[in-house]
Amino acid sequence: MPETTVAHEPTSHGQAAYEPTDRTVLTRARERASYDRALVHSILDAAYVCHLGFVRDGRPVVLPTLYGRVGERLYVHGSTGSRPLRMAGKPDPGLPVCLTVTHVDGLVLARSAFHHSLNYRSVVVHGIAHQVTDPEEKTTALDALVDHAIPGRSHDSRPANTKELAATAVLRLDLTEVSAKVRTGGPNDDPEDLGLPHWTGVIPLSTTYGAPIPADDLDPSIALPAYLSAL
Amino acid sequence: MPETTVAHEPTSHGQAAYEPTDRTVLTRARERASYDRALVHSILDAAYVCHLGFVRDGRPVVLPTLYGRVGERLYVHGSTGSRPLRMAGKPDPGLPVCLTVTHVDGLVLARSAFHHSLNYRSVVVHGIAHQVTDPEEKTTALDALVDHAIPGRSHDSRPANTKELAATAVLRLDLTEVSAKVRTGGPNDDPEDLGLPHWTGVIPLSTTYGAPIPADDLDPSIALPAYLSAL
Repeated sequence: MPETTVAHEPTSHGQAAYEPTDRTVLTRARERASYDRALVHSILDAAYVCHLGFVRDGRPVVLPTLYGRVGERLYVHGSTGSRPLRMAGKPDPGLPVCLTVTHVDGLVLARSAFHHSLNYRSVVVHGIAHQVTDPEEKTTALDALVDHAIPGRSHDSRPANTKELAATAVLRLDLTEVSAKVRTGGPNDDPEDLGLPHWTGVIPLSTTYGAPIPADDLDPSIALPAYLSAL
Repeated sequence: MPETTVAHEPTSHGQAAYEPTDRTVLTRARERASYDRALVHSILDAAYVCHLGFVRDGRPVVLPTLYGRVGERLYVHGSTGSRPLRMAGKPDPGLPVCLTVTHVDGLVLARSAFHHSLNYRSVVVHGIAHQVTDPEEKTTALDALVDHAIPGRSHDSRPANTKELAATAVLRLDLTEVSAKVRTGGPNDDPEDLGLPHWTGVIPLSTTYGAPIPADDLDPSIALPAYLSAL
């Protein structure tokens, strides 16, 4: 029988930080690491794509992927590829993944080439992703993907029907093995370089929205809703 | 003896496109795939970070990473971890990697949740990354990393000295197994949804530079150079 039960939702158990594991301890610049839950959530919630890594035939594959967050659970567009297994009546063993989200906030121009850097915020999530099969959970997942891009949009679009849900592959990945890494501030030049004649500082980077472009076939009587003009 | 020779640089052999391989044939939305060399270069040249995937202890790892391009070769900040092997006199077998670069260009808001999407440009590179050990090649690589962020900056900063080069880990990855994927345009709603009362179209996204922030210890007599005010 295909799996129809929904795994228990993970909770934060009242803890403000994720527990570091061997996989999530940083090897470089450990002072920039954080396991703070609120920081992790803010980084995850601010990006449009993640980069999902998995292993296929022994080789790494990294694909830009849509996702959304519901509490301590991520829903990720995609498949474990295990449908043949499930149709044979075997449970989905899950797909080991690494999901990474990065924001580049600035270019750090030092006096030395060696100390050039970026200001950034990143989160790395390790875990086992499982195929979502329950239609109600899939609806929650698809709402999460849509609302992740534009909060509230799931209420201003036609929800998926049964056929569309069946055609949508979504993975579930819980936030347990998680780390964040952040760099902020100016360049860290060596003291002996401070007299060099090069401009040094930070060029900030940010993502901005452009003016919304209506679809060619949009009825002109339909005005831009408030939640979109607010962008 | 440690490896000191520089591998021959790859060339395009006058071909305008990369040859697809099993790993680079897309499984989904193949009509969006491209193997055009110039398109791949433009996507790679426009991003500040890539997401580098590799396998460690059988599990995938994806890290945001600095990189730069020199012709058909990428230089990537990082290590294969094979220094113990090399110090034992064995050649570096290289690290199988997947390097992915993505630009999100717009949010595609369809009338149905199912047809929501993103406009994007992405490149996926598969290959074996090798540690750069030759000091002259390392200098080329470090210049490429600096100039990738700000073209020309390698000429307006102090080049790395011998000690800094020794402390810099850089990988070489050639552009042979490469694919690009691009989505542009408006939403692709189903015909039966065209009468629904939801605003539909595209919200463009772009990355913009903010006003440069000089370092606290910058000599005020050093003006912002032209190549930075041009941003």
